[in-house]
Amino acid sequence: MPDPSTQSRGDFPYFISVPTRWGDNDMLGHVNNVVYYRYFEAVVVRFQMEEAGVDWLKDKISPQAVETLCRFHRPLSFPETVDAGLRVGRIGNSSVTFEIALFGEKEKTPAATGHFVHVFVEAETLRPKTIPGPMRAVFEKFR
Amino acid sequence: MPDPSTQSRGDFPYFISVPTRWGDNDMLGHVNNVVYYRYFEAVVVRFQMEEAGVDWLKDKISPQAVETLCRFHRPLSFPETVDAGLRVGRIGNSSVTFEIALFGEKEKTPAATGHFVHVFVEAETLRPKTIPGPMRAVFEKFR
Amino acid sequence: MPDPSTQSRGDFPYFISVPTRWGDNDMLGHVNNVVYYRYFEAVVVRFQMEEAGVDWLKDKISPQAVETLCRFHRPLSFPETVDAGLRVGRIGNSSVTFEIALFGEKEKTPAATGHFVHVFVEAETLRPKTIPGPMRAVFEKFR
Amino acid sequence: MPDPSTQSRGDFPYFISVPTRWGDNDMLGHVNNVVYYRYFEAVVVRFQMEEAGVDWLKDKISPQAVETLCRFHRPLSFPETVDAGLRVGRIGNSSVTFEIALFGEKEKTPAATGHFVHVFVEAETLRPKTIPGPMRAVFEKFR
Repeated sequence: MPDPSTQSRGDFPYFISVPTRWGDNDMLGHVNNVVYYRYFEAVVVRFQMEEAGVDWLKDKISPQAVETLCRFHRPLSFPETVDAGLRVGRIGNSSVTFEIALFGEKEKTPAATGHFVHVFVEAETLRPKTIPGPMRAVFEKFR
Repeated sequence: MPDPSTQSRGDFPYFISVPTRWGDNDMLGHVNNVVYYRYFEAVVVRFQMEEAGVDWLKDKISPQAVETLCRFHRPLSFPETVDAGLRVGRIGNSSVTFEIALFGEKEKTPAATGHFVHVFVEAETLRPKTIPGPMRAVFEKFR
Repeated sequence: MPDPSTQSRGDFPYFISVPTRWGDNDMLGHVNNVVYYRYFEAVVVRFQMEEAGVDWLKDKISPQAVETLCRFHRPLSFPETVDAGLRVGRIGNSSVTFEIALFGEKEKTPAATGHFVHVFVEAETLRPKTIPGPMRAVFEKFR
Repeated sequence: MPDPSTQSRGDFPYFISVPTRWGDNDMLGHVNNVVYYRYFEAVVVRFQMEEAGVDWLKDKISPQAVETLCRFHRPLSFPETVDAGLRVGRIGNSSVTFEIALFGEKEKTPAATGHFVHVFVEAETLRPKTIPGPMRAVFEKFR
């Protein structure tokens, strides 16, 4: 992913708002670095459910996280509301990479950027499977 | 539950140690009040699994929280290790009350006291059921 | 607090919406009982900041939790949005009791009810202090 | 970091045990992917406090996370205790990279591997500063 200072909201076709919670801040007065991944998860899970139609409890083939990464550029802090943007990066045979950026309230460049890689697996065996066609079509749309 | 200043470790027959985590502290530099219930849960769940033999994923009748309460007497703080004590209070037909106290490292009186009421329910319907005999016998022992 | 089945949204003058997060659900598929207190905290903290003007990091006298209680009537589950209602109960010299109810999406009666007691203390010594006049006036309004 | 299947406990000179908590598991019955970073944080924070002598609340120059990454190889699950191993990787002028591996109870190869990059900054301005000499010496020892 390129330099965050060159990334703007317009680079991400899918957005959700994530209200921060008091307990998201840690002793240092900012959102704890672990919690950024809660926000990543929030946008990825919502995208997978609402756009790609994933149902983790019923689908026989469903996505599992295999790699996540976050770069922290500026602090986020309760009580602001965070805007989490997502776009689809690489689409492989069984895996899809979501590129994510978190924007502070009214901020133009991201406070954090990173990615979240999902691999589609058979729920029972956890073996990788080809991404189902309709889901792949959705991923292509948000590239 | 009586005045916490009169409660000591000897009043609780079951104990576990709970290492605090950095993120348990909030902006004010102490363990966040919500997290005390994580420690309550830790001692109740461990007791139910190891002493009473509860298996939430397999048992047809299993305990569910219906009421919890916590009184905060003194702050706890990362990085100390908390000792969580438990004793069984009231045993009803389908419910059991656990009386809980959290002790800071080397502290003689509790930093927090409270209770956690479990009702045994049928997993499918969530209807209350009589506490299974062997579990009731365990509860009697820790009264 | 009276029977939850007799409580409705109209009984609470202050409300916020709390989007649930994937990780709020536990292994049993519902919001974990500890997390209900995160929702309690969310509505109490927002009320104290926005209505009563509390600033925990700057005020010399600020509120601290001394007792919280929750009764669990029905499960809440991600991905629903929870509505958290608050009204002021007892107002003492240094303490104020918030009565809280959590409503599932579109539900008319609460999934959970409880309270959250704040005591105003001197930040340095943690000694109880009289509730500042302007804050007391706000509490009276939401009784 | 090389193939996880070739990594063993002996490759990490610093270890802590992290008891899992009930709420660490998510709806799918395994430790939620976000929580792996809590375990990363646990071992990094403990190392920085106990070995390198960092005190975040007092030091004028202290480390802040600038990048974290995790690869998920196998599920971890409550109630097992996780062993978190750490070794020091790259040491720059102001930054240090910790290489981390999480091992399930009695497992020989890691369930997860990743890294955690700390940059030393001036607490007030958040500007990068040279790693203090005594801390650099500690990092060298755990390479």
